[in-house]
Amino acid sequence: MFDVFARNCTSRETMEHVTGRWGGLAMVALLDGMTRFNALRRRVDGISEKMLSQTLQALERDGLVLREARPTIPPHVEYSLTPVGREVAEKLLELVDLLESRMPGVMDARAVYDAR
Amino acid sequence: MFDVFARNCTSRETMEHVTGRWGGLAMVALLDGMTRFNALRRRVDGISEKMLSQTLQALERDGLVLREARPTIPPHVEYSLTPVGREVAEKLLELVDLLESRMPGVMDARAVYDAR
Repeated sequence: MFDVFARNCTSRETMEHVTGRWGGLAMVALLDGMTRFNALRRRVDGISEKMLSQTLQALERDGLVLREARPTIPPHVEYSLTPVGREVAEKLLELVDLLESRMPGVMDARAVYDAR
Repeated sequence: MFDVFARNCTSRETMEHVTGRWGGLAMVALLDGMTRFNALRRRVDGISEKMLSQTLQALERDGLVLREARPTIPPHVEYSLTPVGREVAEKLLELVDLLESRMPGVMDARAVYDAR
């Protein structure tokens, strides 16, 4: 059994990969379809090349993202979601949509909190 | 309009509060109902007192978590989800349930990746 609440459970590690600072954004961005590294980097505004590379590598190792090197000239690398990765990304997108829609209330709550 | 993909959008900050290393776990734990600080700390295995305190404070400021100091002897502090916090936590729980159920596949993917 896997339990994200247990400190040493592998599932917590994967939870961190998909929800960490950049993992969630990268996965949601990949819902648009197969994407090249540089296009992903532009989409996930603010991520460094190194962080995107590390983020994608962890997601690839977890079987959530597929990395394909195209034998084109010049060669380029494309990323896409695996079937499981797509399930996870769809759940993340629901979370993003919910949060974005609730932001006016969040802003109000912050104003009240900061005025105390 | 809020857009988590934009570097400076406030929604990205809130996204980080609810998905960061501890925020998601704390919110899912609060789905069980009003909880005291120390009980939360035991539930979110591995979190330090300082981190839990910072995590809850950010979520309280965002209007997702409610902090109530009870005038008991000895006094104690209880945390619960606001209505919006509950919506977000339910979405996070769906993500946790999905990830936990997909972990056997994640473990297989890692074994394949590490053997390359």
